[in-house]
Amino acid sequence: MSQFVQRRDIDFLLHEVFDLKTLLDAPRYRAHDRESISAMLDSAEAVARKHFLPIAGLLDANEPKFVEGRVEIPSEARAALRAHAEAGFFALGFDEADGGLQAPTVAVLMASGIFTCANLSLANYAFLTAANANMLRAFGTEDQRRRYLPPMLEGRWFGTMCLSEPQAGSSLADIATKAEPLPDSFYRLKGSKMWISGGDHELADNIVHMVLAKIPGGPPGVKGISLFLAPRYRVEADGSLGSWNNIALAGLNHKMGQRGTVNCLLNFSEGGDTLATLIGEPGKGLAYMFHMMNEARLGVGHAAAMCGLGGYLSSLEYARQRLQGRLPNNKDPSSPPVPIIEHADVKRMLLAQKAAVEGAMALTGYCAYLVDLQKIADDAAERERLDALLGVLTPVAKSWPSEHCLEANKHAIQILGGYGYTRDFPVERFYRDNRLNPIHEGALGIQAIDLLGRKVRLDGGLGFDLLCAKIEDAVALGRLESELSAETAALQEALDKLRATTRAVLASNDLALGLANATIYLDAFGHVLIGWMWLWQATVATRALHARADGEGRLFYMGKLAACRYFFRYELPKIDAAFTLVGSLDDACLSFESSWF
Amino acid sequence: MSQFVQRRDIDFLLHEVFDLKTLLDAPRYRAHDRESISAMLDSAEAVARKHFLPIAGLLDANEPKFVEGRVEIPSEARAALRAHAEAGFFALGFDEADGGLQAPTVAVLMASGIFTCANLSLANYAFLTAANANMLRAFGTEDQRRRYLPPMLEGRWFGTMCLSEPQAGSSLADIATKAEPLPDSFYRLKGSKMWISGGDHELADNIVHMVLAKIPGGPPGVKGISLFLAPRYRVEADGSLGSWNNIALAGLNHKMGQRGTVNCLLNFSEGGDTLATLIGEPGKGLAYMFHMMNEARLGVGHAAAMCGLGGYLSSLEYARQRLQGRLPNNKDPSSPPVPIIEHADVKRMLLAQKAAVEGAMALTGYCAYLVDLQKIADDAAERERLDALLGVLTPVAKSWPSEHCLEANKHAIQILGGYGYTRDFPVERFYRDNRLNPIHEGALGIQAIDLLGRKVRLDGGLGFDLLCAKIEDAVALGRLESELSAETAALQEALDKLRATTRAVLASNDLALGLANATIYLDAFGHVLIGWMWLWQATVATRALHARADGEGRLFYMGKLAACRYFFRYELPKIDAAFTLVGSLDDACLSFESSWF
Repeated sequence: MSQFVQRRDIDFLLHEVFDLKTLLDAPRYRAHDRESISAMLDSAEAVARKHFLPIAGLLDANEPKFVEGRVEIPSEARAALRAHAEAGFFALGFDEADGGLQAPTVAVLMASGIFTCANLSLANYAFLTAANANMLRAFGTEDQRRRYLPPMLEGRWFGTMCLSEPQAGSSLADIATKAEPLPDSFYRLKGSKMWISGGDHELADNIVHMVLAKIPGGPPGVKGISLFLAPRYRVEADGSLGSWNNIALAGLNHKMGQRGTVNCLLNFSEGGDTLATLIGEPGKGLAYMFHMMNEARLGVGHAAAMCGLGGYLSSLEYARQRLQGRLPNNKDPSSPPVPIIEHADVKRMLLAQKAAVEGAMALTGYCAYLVDLQKIADDAAERERLDALLGVLTPVAKSWPSEHCLEANKHAIQILGGYGYTRDFPVERFYRDNRLNPIHEGALGIQAIDLLGRKVRLDGGLGFDLLCAKIEDAVALGRLESELSAETAALQEALDKLRATTRAVLASNDLALGLANATIYLDAFGHVLIGWMWLWQATVATRALHARADGEGRLFYMGKLAACRYFFRYELPKIDAAFTLVGSLDDACLSFESSWF
Repeated sequence: MSQFVQRRDIDFLLHEVFDLKTLLDAPRYRAHDRESISAMLDSAEAVARKHFLPIAGLLDANEPKFVEGRVEIPSEARAALRAHAEAGFFALGFDEADGGLQAPTVAVLMASGIFTCANLSLANYAFLTAANANMLRAFGTEDQRRRYLPPMLEGRWFGTMCLSEPQAGSSLADIATKAEPLPDSFYRLKGSKMWISGGDHELADNIVHMVLAKIPGGPPGVKGISLFLAPRYRVEADGSLGSWNNIALAGLNHKMGQRGTVNCLLNFSEGGDTLATLIGEPGKGLAYMFHMMNEARLGVGHAAAMCGLGGYLSSLEYARQRLQGRLPNNKDPSSPPVPIIEHADVKRMLLAQKAAVEGAMALTGYCAYLVDLQKIADDAAERERLDALLGVLTPVAKSWPSEHCLEANKHAIQILGGYGYTRDFPVERFYRDNRLNPIHEGALGIQAIDLLGRKVRLDGGLGFDLLCAKIEDAVALGRLESELSAETAALQEALDKLRATTRAVLASNDLALGLANATIYLDAFGHVLIGWMWLWQATVATRALHARADGEGRLFYMGKLAACRYFFRYELPKIDAAFTLVGSLDDACLSFESSWF
């Protein structure tokens, strides 16, 4: 593919929408400037193009196999991840004190997104390792950090998250894995973990598992869950590898997509003890995991957007080249066919993709930018406000892209028609890959309950109020541009409906009824946020058009403006039906008896 | 799976909603009665359960291979199709005069749907053979019918449709395959055909291709297209097989789903002449093909509903058995988890599937019932009215199930979570299989232009007006049941909006602008029809509840009533935004310049 990511759009977000300069001026990011960030993104694109992109189809067609007790993955995967590691991308977001490059989170997200777009299955290994290392950095002891962090930041060892079990996916309170105390601060892990991405393979020299388990005698439910570190190979005090830690590969899951990412069922203490060390304090495992999961949810949302982008760019290229049909007013069958991009319905499907993908990227990018603002904030109160704001945004930033960029992939297939349905083109792979994103790191319905059952209620609605204020600010800026009057008014109206609906649900004393339509609320909430992101982008584009833009630049900004218009006319009006339904506390689902199915 | 189709729902449609008795009382169907139809459906279920269902996963995992010039498909496929043929299902819908069983079309559709639900990839071979034979029956010469019909009705020879070419899928006007006249009424076919399902294999003794081609010197565009019959092996006057007809398999398409159905690129006259005979008159190929395509579109819509049903029943079974989580008001972590069917959001996803699948089945079933009414009508004017009505309904009956039962499959995966994403459960296969349905037999956008650009305009809107009158009738019946007052009022309002939107588009002089949002119109049009189908079903269910229903029957009718309520509260309100957009003749897509992407 000639263009597999849109660098221009990344730069637009970083420098024109979010103002990266604010971050780069802060002491925390003093080692970086606009040029170094640009060079880093160039490097990501070059490495991804050279090593990740060419083997995406290969890894999809040759999923991991269980051969003589080991996982077999095409050898190109290890080489590609080595190239990624050697270019420094495992260490990019970590603090200099931990051996990292301390780049802004928003730039790290965009760089990792480039790899995701090229080859999601491979990028997952790096993503999981970073999430694992981030948790270790935050809650590990000095000894744990010294032993495990450096090889992970160098990309020599990979990391996993061991949360789910065969009987407990969404319901972590019910995990059954035990951690029995041994002398010398060790624990013996007993049990099975399911859906472990990167759980066993030969792509790295060691695998560091972060495992949720219960110490016998602890309280029931989530309060009894602790977090443990268990490596595939034990690690000596000097960092050298010791013996195998008895974590047995019990089976591989054969997935619909993301096939290059090995996904395992693991059994602990098989044939011997699986030794683990406690991370932080007992009983706080889930709290620590949620720390990581906020980052992971953002990553999943962004990965969904990147899958969407891959499909969008593939179908865009196809639509420009494929000649077929004539425009409705041309009845001459001997006239030459037109590129299908000229058909209104193909434009609609391209616009639907552009609106979803670039809207979603703006939202996940904005969340990462807020994380950076939090990191550079001197004021504790400001950090708390940002935390509350991120708390409300995160479930949406995970979910909306997962739903709507999957829908974008559906459109990409449709544009290619029969060709899109074959494995000769990447669009069906993006569609299959993306289907996991509404499921993992907390399924859609779980995110919805997190948002409506918890986040909009916390601290008297602090995060929600802060969010509404941010949107009001964007509306105020939009009002200054007369071209955007319709969109500005529509966003204000959408925000009012969001507020009224939220109030109506929170006023109910019936928790089950109030949460019954949480998923629909989450989706409409997301539409309001994406509308905001589009108004914001269109405001910037309008100013740029007024100021100076010509040539390529003008086309880019015109595209932003018109895509904003598309979103406000074709997508945002859908919230009316949704908010009316949610606000009415409709019980059609809740009261449907299971015997009626 | 314990239940892979819902026989109760089929009987409900046939006997309680559509009144099959009207058909069975007609002379045309005198050989059938309620008991024989019931026995036929029993037989379909038994054969499908024994032969089709068990190898659905096998055929998906072992797609056709090109080995030494032949297509290799697991041998179980041939045996299963033999069992299907021996039970008489190839001949079911054909006239007795042609060697068929002359069963009502609606019953044939339901029977074929049972096979589709069990194994779409296999059912396709029978479906294509029937479509082919139906065209041959209608337009073939006595000699063509005598040679080819009997072995197809016996399921010994299969049929294909050769329309698309590599450069022309949606745009059939641009096909390039040539038919050069030879002596003795033969033609030599030259060219390539793409996406030919069942195009080459060893599952049958011969393959009868229906091929669109142009006779040199004819007019450009669709008027130059004629229809030809070309067998894989030439057929002697006595019906015996002659030499190979030089139709070369040039390649297999590797699809995302429906993998058991071999899909080919065929080259005609490779190494020798491909001899073909003309079907009907020259230049009428497309008209003949559309005759078949009406039936095929109905079949595709029904197949989409059946894929949806497969996912629905799988996820329903899973939701009843899988224990996880607790209800929102229960804060005791030591209490046992509940079956996930008790969670409101899981109920919502099941209801969304039920509403889409049973609504779609009602719509496709109703269309087939109208075909039967047309077949038994004595009055030519009545037949024309039914033809106009079917003309408007068919693009919707093809499209709505293809979109919304695919969405249903997405919900089925979501209910199973990580398990749903693996190939250990059939839900991801249904999702992949179903993704083809919005593409083949006329892609979604083509159906939309057929509906808004043609069908609602034909004969001064005759078909559209007839349809509106039918819906008004259903509203009038619904009004008699006080429980349905909200739904009755909502359907009337929806119909008014459909009428107003249609008028607004037809009033425009700008054809390109009028058609720019045809796909959104088609989708909302479908929502109105499905709303109608649900009100109709709920009216029947309400009467049954008043009259007598108890036990299992009561649960069934309660389910119908509550699913109707779900559709009217959660789905139908979506049309407001859609009709407002379409009625405003919005140009956001049409005027988006391709250089802005």
